[in-house]
Amino acid sequence: MPRTAETAEFQFNHTMIRVKDPKVSIQFYTETLGMDLLSEQAFSSFTLYFLGYDHSKGTLTAEEKAQSRFDREGILELTHNHGTESDPEFQGYSSGNTDPGRGFGHIAITVPDIQAACERFEKLGVPFKKRLTDGTMKNIAFILDPDGYWVEIVPSRLQL
Amino acid sequence: MPRTAETAEFQFNHTMIRVKDPKVSIQFYTETLGMDLLSEQAFSSFTLYFLGYDHSKGTLTAEEKAQSRFDREGILELTHNHGTESDPEFQGYSSGNTDPGRGFGHIAITVPDIQAACERFEKLGVPFKKRLTDGTMKNIAFILDPDGYWVEIVPSRLQL
Repeated sequence: MPRTAETAEFQFNHTMIRVKDPKVSIQFYTETLGMDLLSEQAFSSFTLYFLGYDHSKGTLTAEEKAQSRFDREGILELTHNHGTESDPEFQGYSSGNTDPGRGFGHIAITVPDIQAACERFEKLGVPFKKRLTDGTMKNIAFILDPDGYWVEIVPSRLQL
Repeated sequence: MPRTAETAEFQFNHTMIRVKDPKVSIQFYTETLGMDLLSEQAFSSFTLYFLGYDHSKGTLTAEEKAQSRFDREGILELTHNHGTESDPEFQGYSSGNTDPGRGFGHIAITVPDIQAACERFEKLGVPFKKRLTDGTMKNIAFILDPDGYWVEIVPSRLQL
């Protein structure tokens, strides 16, 4: 039940991270993680890409899909500042998990079968920050996206 | 429609940020932004808090609400490393929007009436990074959470 009438229709719509090279990042988030590119908006010096899982049965038109990004949760916004992808002096972005720059931690994807998901990531050559077998928490993994952001992989049927 | 069978049930479940003082942050995300505290997990040196909008009509039990965090999108995870809230030497976390540490940008909340939402934030004394009247984009605002993370406020009925 919503906490207050004033916030009843609020939604946690999206999370934005900056990426060095949108081609590489979009390939990762669509091909490896299975999101859809819902829409993109180009400005003079940067372009915004909006991604999200399309869980519909193929019923959404391209326009509805693009519009859906304002009326749902679970959207990832990638900001590409033009030129970083080919600038030899570009230092890369901070993952948020080291000093200086610590703050942001990760995004997380829930998956129905974490063993199968991690085996597929291994086959695809995705770098791991933490495999299922590492550390004490055997039921979660962390992979790295192309900019080094941590992506947690969590079983959707995990019991508390 | 899901892109591949292997990723069909994947969900963009949560985003994690570190917070200095959970009391202050939870008050902000629940009282000001209207999220529910769905569950928390205490470890020896840190505690995790999971928040999300409960859009049900009050039908979820506390247990179902806690369990829902593994099977939905739009969850915010706050990590509190014990002691930061009272450590005079703690420097605070990076918002991700300045160097060094640039990378993460913001989270975003969609709201049905952005004028009303922003007037309420003003009344509540929430600091703004960008008011509706600032800059060229008159239909979005940015407020700051207690750690200085940017929270974009976007109208859910924005037309492309």
